[in-house]
Amino acid sequence: MPSYLVSRYQGWHATSYAENRAWYRRLAEEGQRPRSMIIACCDSRVHVTSMFGADQGEFFIHRNIANLVPEFTPDGDHHGTSAAIEYAVKNLKVAHLIVLGHSSCGGVAGCHAMCAGEAPELEEKSSFVGTWLNLLRPGYERVLELPAEQQIVALEREAVKVSLENLMTFPFVREALDADRMTLHGLRHDIGEGTLEQYDSDSDQFELI
Amino acid sequence: MPSYLVSRYQGWHATSYAENRAWYRRLAEEGQRPRSMIIACCDSRVHVTSMFGADQGEFFIHRNIANLVPEFTPDGDHHGTSAAIEYAVKNLKVAHLIVLGHSSCGGVAGCHAMCAGEAPELEEKSSFVGTWLNLLRPGYERVLELPAEQQIVALEREAVKVSLENLMTFPFVREALDADRMTLHGLRHDIGEGTLEQYDSDSDQFELI
Amino acid sequence: MPSYLVSRYQGWHATSYAENRAWYRRLAEEGQRPRSMIIACCDSRVHVTSMFGADQGEFFIHRNIANLVPEFTPDGDHHGTSAAIEYAVKNLKVAHLIVLGHSSCGGVAGCHAMCAGEAPELEEKSSFVGTWLNLLRPGYERVLELPAEQQIVALEREAVKVSLENLMTFPFVREALDADRMTLHGLRHDIGEGTLEQYDSDSDQFELI
Amino acid sequence: MPSYLVSRYQGWHATSYAENRAWYRRLAEEGQRPRSMIIACCDSRVHVTSMFGADQGEFFIHRNIANLVPEFTPDGDHHGTSAAIEYAVKNLKVAHLIVLGHSSCGGVAGCHAMCAGEAPELEEKSSFVGTWLNLLRPGYERVLELPAEQQIVALEREAVKVSLENLMTFPFVREALDADRMTLHGLRHDIGEGTLEQYDSDSDQFELI
Repeated sequence: MPSYLVSRYQGWHATSYAENRAWYRRLAEEGQRPRSMIIACCDSRVHVTSMFGADQGEFFIHRNIANLVPEFTPDGDHHGTSAAIEYAVKNLKVAHLIVLGHSSCGGVAGCHAMCAGEAPELEEKSSFVGTWLNLLRPGYERVLELPAEQQIVALEREAVKVSLENLMTFPFVREALDADRMTLHGLRHDIGEGTLEQYDSDSDQFELI
Repeated sequence: MPSYLVSRYQGWHATSYAENRAWYRRLAEEGQRPRSMIIACCDSRVHVTSMFGADQGEFFIHRNIANLVPEFTPDGDHHGTSAAIEYAVKNLKVAHLIVLGHSSCGGVAGCHAMCAGEAPELEEKSSFVGTWLNLLRPGYERVLELPAEQQIVALEREAVKVSLENLMTFPFVREALDADRMTLHGLRHDIGEGTLEQYDSDSDQFELI
Repeated sequence: MPSYLVSRYQGWHATSYAENRAWYRRLAEEGQRPRSMIIACCDSRVHVTSMFGADQGEFFIHRNIANLVPEFTPDGDHHGTSAAIEYAVKNLKVAHLIVLGHSSCGGVAGCHAMCAGEAPELEEKSSFVGTWLNLLRPGYERVLELPAEQQIVALEREAVKVSLENLMTFPFVREALDADRMTLHGLRHDIGEGTLEQYDSDSDQFELI
Repeated sequence: MPSYLVSRYQGWHATSYAENRAWYRRLAEEGQRPRSMIIACCDSRVHVTSMFGADQGEFFIHRNIANLVPEFTPDGDHHGTSAAIEYAVKNLKVAHLIVLGHSSCGGVAGCHAMCAGEAPELEEKSSFVGTWLNLLRPGYERVLELPAEQQIVALEREAVKVSLENLMTFPFVREALDADRMTLHGLRHDIGEGTLEQYDSDSDQFELI
């Protein structure tokens, strides 16, 4: 392992771990009981736990390119995102399911370029990134009518909305929501401004928190 | 959003964000430039950024159930994990690619139960979790000869090794490694003890850091 | 202090405290003037201030195991609960004195087990918990005639009633009530349902609010 | 119940409860698993959960006059504080035990007056408050040498230190500390300034966080 990570890990073990050893041991013995699942982007600038003041044990976190959720497709293929959602909802019984999008998302920008025909390399069947970003194509259709300079931000919001829509195609998500066992939330974080906006399904708008 | 998360977010914005605004704005304007990609489990007890003393911008993080990587399969289907790896290696050109497993992993335990025929619900085609955990089946074959009480920990290590092996089937991963543009690491974290062990391919052993 | 609490505290200081600094300074200079005293359980799931929308300065709160009040016993020994009540009634002259019980109370369940002879460890003289829960033994006698499955909830209500009865043995409580300077209330909170029921001394029943 | 509390409770039920129903139900069904116990003063101006960004389920809270802990005295009498500590350490196995003192504490000021012979009413055997505050008398002896205007703040700090010392007389507290199953912390909160200082046993000083 790179030595700078070894040093940092050792520092963590001598301080934060040492101070919280008792809690970490209990978490190890008794298992996790996270209150929320967060689906966020892999982007290195999105720091979920820091933003929500969390330490070990609070959030079950799935991160993929552009925080996308595919439709419910039980075809026997490997679906990592769907597996994480199934585990969180059915096994861990999380109380909140949160989709967290963000500004300056490389995945969203890539999807926009691809859909606009400006990124042929993403349209190749061999591009995992392009194939994955196809999940956001329905969002692209909905931002086309906007002025060009507004399309990217709008598509970042669509990445949250499309995921919320697709989540509703999972029977166990629907059931948990219908039975008031879980709530669903869509957020978009602005990295530069540090702000957070929340999707309101009644107004179909994102509103600043 | 739950109100306690709103309070915590607002606290973060007034402190950590406020103190680092200049850096966050640069990250927003200039884009991310993470040094490493980490593939970790969704488990709420695995706190990657805390353990490596990281803040915004350092780690491109993909998290899925049991930190698994499938084989290279460019079939035009959605592959979230493969997309994240492709983006990290080809676009972001990360210098280190790290697979981080952990103790008491619910996914690994589920895979063990499924392969032992004790979890028929995971073997159903409709189980996303079961289908996903099939990726670890080759690891199960390799721990079968061990005494029963050692199999789970051994399978947690296999979850790292299988992922490392599958990573080598990606041409762009191989190329980056061959050109010395990237290094590859496998780790397993013990949640209760706070320890970290590293896979050594020469000895085929995990060694405590 | 655990670092996650340091972060959260700093967030609070930069937001909630900063916005209310003038009020906090007045509270510090002029002293507290709480309108009510609440006697509640230590249980982490009973969130008194949240439920009553309170912030700094409104409630004088004593919390002990199972929200129990002992009888008036001025024997010169340390009586923390009686001291808190004396201070609230005589010095602070609170207008309302509220006993707040709750569902799934570990203390009440422990008392039930102890009285039923199923928890010998609590009957040992060295068990502070057992000795404390003896205060609720008169309540146990009164729920014995009920079907077994109703006894625990009934005993949770008795924990409120016994405390109200014992409060009436304090001369200064009686005086404040007789002089109409204070009112007395008994509540039971259901954690899962979020409901609140109030004791009505006329009907000797708890009624949903 | 006073109608303003009914209104606030109903508001809480329609908003915060409704949004978190799933979590509250799980807490009700599965029991509490608080990470920390906090021993704080009943004072209405000390808002523990707000300061630490907590919602239901995180802190097991005992509150008494002046956040005092008596010595270990297993004499078969009712000891509410000792019972709460026993339950937290032995049953709930909390990872952190935190004593939280505060500025402008009426109990501490009362103890100072009583020990200085200026509050004869507190010295009467029938005064629960005076008898309770006797627990802090050893602290009074230690602040006597200071200039008069520094004695009250020093005695507030002693209220934390005396409690920490007395906690060490409980065998199960000592055992949990020795076995690294728990950590112990002493804090003093300044209500007007919103600051928090932490006791450092090495330097025997309180240091600002």
